Amino acid sequence: MTTVSIVNVTSYTGSELLRLLAVHPQFVVTSVTGRSTVGKRLGEIFPHLYAMNARLVPEGRMAIDPDLVITEEPAQTDLAFVCLPHAAAAESAARLLQHGTKVVDLSADFRLRDVDVYAEWYNHTHPEPALLETAVYGLCERYREQISQASLIANPGCHVTTSLLALIPAFAAGIVTPDVIVDSKTGISGGGRNPSQKYHFPEADEDVAAYGISGHRHMPEIAQELEAAAVAGGHPLERKLRLTFVPHVVPMIRGIFSTNYVDLKLDAEQHIPTTEEIQALYKEFYANEPFVHVVDQPPHTKWTYGSNHCFIYPIVDTRTSRLIVVSCLDNLVKGASGQAIQNANLLYNLPETTGLEALAVHP
Amino acid sequence: MTTVSIVNVTSYTGSELLRLLAVHPQFVVTSVTGRSTVGKRLGEIFPHLYAMNARLVPEGRMAIDPDLVITEEPAQTDLAFVCLPHAAAAESAARLLQHGTKVVDLSADFRLRDVDVYAEWYNHTHPEPALLETAVYGLCERYREQISQASLIANPGCHVTTSLLALIPAFAAGIVTPDVIVDSKTGISGGGRNPSQKYHFPEADEDVAAYGISGHRHMPEIAQELEAAAVAGGHPLERKLRLTFVPHVVPMIRGIFSTNYVDLKLDAEQHIPTTEEIQALYKEFYANEPFVHVVDQPPHTKWTYGSNHCFIYPIVDTRTSRLIVVSCLDNLVKGASGQAIQNANLLYNLPETTGLEALAVHP
Amino acid sequence: MTTVSIVNVTSYTGSELLRLLAVHPQFVVTSVTGRSTVGKRLGEIFPHLYAMNARLVPEGRMAIDPDLVITEEPAQTDLAFVCLPHAAAAESAARLLQHGTKVVDLSADFRLRDVDVYAEWYNHTHPEPALLETAVYGLCERYREQISQASLIANPGCHVTTSLLALIPAFAAGIVTPDVIVDSKTGISGGGRNPSQKYHFPEADEDVAAYGISGHRHMPEIAQELEAAAVAGGHPLERKLRLTFVPHVVPMIRGIFSTNYVDLKLDAEQHIPTTEEIQALYKEFYANEPFVHVVDQPPHTKWTYGSNHCFIYPIVDTRTSRLIVVSCLDNLVKGASGQAIQNANLLYNLPETTGLEALAVHP
Amino acid sequence: MTTVSIVNVTSYTGSELLRLLAVHPQFVVTSVTGRSTVGKRLGEIFPHLYAMNARLVPEGRMAIDPDLVITEEPAQTDLAFVCLPHAAAAESAARLLQHGTKVVDLSADFRLRDVDVYAEWYNHTHPEPALLETAVYGLCERYREQISQASLIANPGCHVTTSLLALIPAFAAGIVTPDVIVDSKTGISGGGRNPSQKYHFPEADEDVAAYGISGHRHMPEIAQELEAAAVAGGHPLERKLRLTFVPHVVPMIRGIFSTNYVDLKLDAEQHIPTTEEIQALYKEFYANEPFVHVVDQPPHTKWTYGSNHCFIYPIVDTRTSRLIVVSCLDNLVKGASGQAIQNANLLYNLPETTGLEALAVHP
Repeated sequence: MTTVSIVNVTSYTGSELLRLLAVHPQFVVTSVTGRSTVGKRLGEIFPHLYAMNARLVPEGRMAIDPDLVITEEPAQTDLAFVCLPHAAAAESAARLLQHGTKVVDLSADFRLRDVDVYAEWYNHTHPEPALLETAVYGLCERYREQISQASLIANPGCHVTTSLLALIPAFAAGIVTPDVIVDSKTGISGGGRNPSQKYHFPEADEDVAAYGISGHRHMPEIAQELEAAAVAGGHPLERKLRLTFVPHVVPMIRGIFSTNYVDLKLDAEQHIPTTEEIQALYKEFYANEPFVHVVDQPPHTKWTYGSNHCFIYPIVDTRTSRLIVVSCLDNLVKGASGQAIQNANLLYNLPETTGLEALAVHP
Repeated sequence: MTTVSIVNVTSYTGSELLRLLAVHPQFVVTSVTGRSTVGKRLGEIFPHLYAMNARLVPEGRMAIDPDLVITEEPAQTDLAFVCLPHAAAAESAARLLQHGTKVVDLSADFRLRDVDVYAEWYNHTHPEPALLETAVYGLCERYREQISQASLIANPGCHVTTSLLALIPAFAAGIVTPDVIVDSKTGISGGGRNPSQKYHFPEADEDVAAYGISGHRHMPEIAQELEAAAVAGGHPLERKLRLTFVPHVVPMIRGIFSTNYVDLKLDAEQHIPTTEEIQALYKEFYANEPFVHVVDQPPHTKWTYGSNHCFIYPIVDTRTSRLIVVSCLDNLVKGASGQAIQNANLLYNLPETTGLEALAVHP
Repeated sequence: MTTVSIVNVTSYTGSELLRLLAVHPQFVVTSVTGRSTVGKRLGEIFPHLYAMNARLVPEGRMAIDPDLVITEEPAQTDLAFVCLPHAAAAESAARLLQHGTKVVDLSADFRLRDVDVYAEWYNHTHPEPALLETAVYGLCERYREQISQASLIANPGCHVTTSLLALIPAFAAGIVTPDVIVDSKTGISGGGRNPSQKYHFPEADEDVAAYGISGHRHMPEIAQELEAAAVAGGHPLERKLRLTFVPHVVPMIRGIFSTNYVDLKLDAEQHIPTTEEIQALYKEFYANEPFVHVVDQPPHTKWTYGSNHCFIYPIVDTRTSRLIVVSCLDNLVKGASGQAIQNANLLYNLPETTGLEALAVHP
Repeated sequence: MTTVSIVNVTSYTGSELLRLLAVHPQFVVTSVTGRSTVGKRLGEIFPHLYAMNARLVPEGRMAIDPDLVITEEPAQTDLAFVCLPHAAAAESAARLLQHGTKVVDLSADFRLRDVDVYAEWYNHTHPEPALLETAVYGLCERYREQISQASLIANPGCHVTTSLLALIPAFAAGIVTPDVIVDSKTGISGGGRNPSQKYHFPEADEDVAAYGISGHRHMPEIAQELEAAAVAGGHPLERKLRLTFVPHVVPMIRGIFSTNYVDLKLDAEQHIPTTEEIQALYKEFYANEPFVHVVDQPPHTKWTYGSNHCFIYPIVDTRTSRLIVVSCLDNLVKGASGQAIQNANLLYNLPETTGLEALAVHP
């Protein structure tokens, strides 16, 4: 058994970790922290957890104990998932690492390699620049080996995961120019658990809107990793990435749907690749991935509801020579807590899919 | 391994069985039937199943094969789940039983003990009256032992399960009169997978309505089992049950919320029982149940989304001496396919919770 | 022109008054108050109001000016709609009446005739008991004449309006016993505009729950008016009303659906009335009402979305001799602000339907 | 009074015309046609129309009579709204025009000027090419004068209206290159009233997907009008428009949100225009429009629910020199039936806003 703490369990990424770890055979949650809820039991905050009890698991072991008391600081555990906001997350991670705890950080603190970019987008100096050296970007499909050797993982952003999985094969193969438009649509759980006027049900239901149009923090993260993928694929960009990213909120709880527009280059024979060629390239790229599926028809976010799966569909717009890649996943699972567990499985040399076998809840 | 067929897999109860069995360690689906979809592969009908592949399961075993071809008739298997409409279900069950296959029937065909009541509510003569003798009503919390000995299980209706779990403790204890009003609210998946004008998204969203007000087929089923519970508890009803049942559709996918109103009798000391006394009675009644949870606050259907759990909250309306019991569950899981697997686990002497360990997807 | 102020315009009932008054030919909003928003213009709080401008109305008159500045206290107007919480509302109404302003109060402060009942349910002494004498209960279909003579109207509660319109014909006709169960389902706008954890979109979407089971403030209001209707109809109740009222929240923005259960008495010939007889009685009762429609099939809340209409469907449950009356309306219109304008029309001797002619937005 | 027929009233655009015309002071619906519903009364198909009755309108005039019988062919009227599918629409329009009836056609039949483009995208020869000469494209903000002289109006597509209103000012001013990406998100009513598997509530709720990625029929219509606007503004395109259009379905009933991406040209001083400059240009462009509103913050589809208004927000992405213009409207009102009435008002020399004064239903 590996003991696990969840720091800031009362966030949606925290409660999603509880849900997923409840069926994990190896990780046992022994410590949970909160801020305004210190001293309460898990089941008081999440009454549905009372469904988890010793009767449910024949051998009497409970991965989640609804009577676990929320504390201010995590107890000593082998592994910690940090679900704090940025800055606070880095400080918590630093303390945990000092005690020998491995850390999967779900905040943005260790995602950007460049502390100046971090400072520009997050409006403060990076609190733990030294740790950046050791942190590994936790996109398992890209950095699997480095992750398995690391002790600090920077779990990617939800919009970022959706777009990177859609665009990395094209950038790694060097078939597109650096002109990118990412139009992303997210369910409302992506906005977190704190109530607000804009996500009050009567305001958010039956509504679509864009946000962060003038600049969203996931933009530099997408840029960093697309540029890195181009280099890793042997096709470094000829000029700086020209990336526009516009996220939208749609009236559903879970799911991100990303529509990615790029310009195709002519190939060696001066042709624009066909949809069939691109699909073959993508299928080859993800041939061994358990959670990434290149499909022959436009996917739906519902195919991913509650699961760690991502579906990708590339298509060439022959009239304009643009490549359109749509991709979708559950923002709380593959876009956050599921990917965090996937990372943790790698950290502990477990099969990467452990505890993440569930299919989408459909319909 | 136990081989399993799903008859009429293209129904919502059929596809929900696929989802749940995908993580079941013992049951392997080797045969699926459909009607208009014969010859197609499962993944063509349910593309999200392509997420299920050998890469997902380390040892390479797939509980669900997306390439399984839909046939008209089931192949020989140990166990069959029948998801056909009534009448067709009974005929299919009869054929399966003749081949030695154990059957969990999710239709209404074997739920009502009285063929005259069946004929009245389903508008035709019962097609297999002889089988009624051997069928066991599959409410596990009531008939656990009989189920484990049976070969034909009548899986209860979704509204029925919700109300019975709420009312049986009171009827078994003899503390209420036979005057019952059940006001039930269901998500739209309860209406099945076939599209219709009334459940076309623009018509069904942002809408609430009642249906079947003049008489719904779940009414006689609730009546039969409440009367039986009263007898089993040693408090047979002094007069015929006077039951009104009104179901409503609310704009959500999954979930049933049932509000049950009954009149409390005076106890031996000529008092109306208190909420505390009733809650203690209910908690005692369900003390050993893995899936039924008596809680201290009004539950939410969301606590059950995608899971096999049922939450119950009884409260005394002291001004009127009425007992109000609210209960909720996921109509496709504990109200249908999850309960069917719970029954099948009993049939095969497996721990009742096998494959049903998941918590609700929340939020 | 009649000048109008809206006190606490930032509530949902306040903004709904803006929407409805925008097409009212006689009432012009010249003063709006708020609490935390003092000094802001209406259009800053409700940006969609910028659609209202002089270009829209050919003659250049604007019923709603998006640049109207929100003040702490209302300016002098002919008429005021008070949308404050209870207690604060009574105090505001008292001040307005002293200045000669007619008041439609949308709070609960002047609905209950008995100050002791008020104190019991609202947990404080009534702040303006003297005004109770002059206040008229603003259910137009019942008190049309008194309303037209009054200067202070107590606009009824939303659940209350829905149930009263459903049950008053039966109580006025003396055909039912005093045993009543009201099971009501409301959209989430009924909970007001302030964000909260429970109505945060991810928590409230795909969920149904009951609230106020142990006692909701609309209960004594329903009781008061049913008893009064029985007296007015010449059939005073033989015993105290035995009323249970359980409201539920369903995941939609607008709409209340009420399912009302009562016991039918035997008629003079010792028969239980038929559905046809009851429907005839109801249609006769509401024959001249512009906003109340007795229909021959179960209605849908969607039939009322954004409109001032109420649909009612009574049906006899012949197996139990119960009368079931379902009714529905838009909680913000006929359940609040539309009814308030209907009252104001009566106050000013305008046709009762003025400004309320719109049909439901459907689908 | 102007007599009006609605051809194919059982479509969503047909029923929306009923709703809007119910408060129109000049147009009276005297004829409605259907296909499978011939012989039924309007109120049988749309029971909520029974709310419309003589009591509602003091003077006893009813703009909509719920007892109007649906016929196969329209009766003689002054004006007809044709809500048939393409091809059938052109044939109906031809017959109506022969009888001297003015026609607003809501189908695509008279939108495209080029019969070859029509044949390519609609897969058949244009049925009435001669009429194309006389048809006027019914985007009121562009062709107001021509419309007022015409007898046949081609009412624009819903996605098209949303994008054109967003992009025309930029193309007319010549500030952008011909590289355009339109990412559009629509509510489900845009898919029509016929039930289907994909828009069955349990499938469509909690889901986002793209459709028509390889080519949607609204694409050539957007292209035609953007090129025309460039010419009309004195800045004809230097090369063919390179337009990608991807529509998406989001789980709501009404509303279109369009995110439009274009590349800005350097201005005379070799600068990229600022957001402030672009917003000023847009506000000037629409200064006299009653229904088009250029706003200073990202708009929401909810601001338009049930109303004829359109909100537009342009912003410069300074990092990439792209102009992003977001726009939104109600697909059934400004995107279809409201715009059709706006056109009809012009045809009859009425104030353009007649009958369209309502604000959005909010929240």
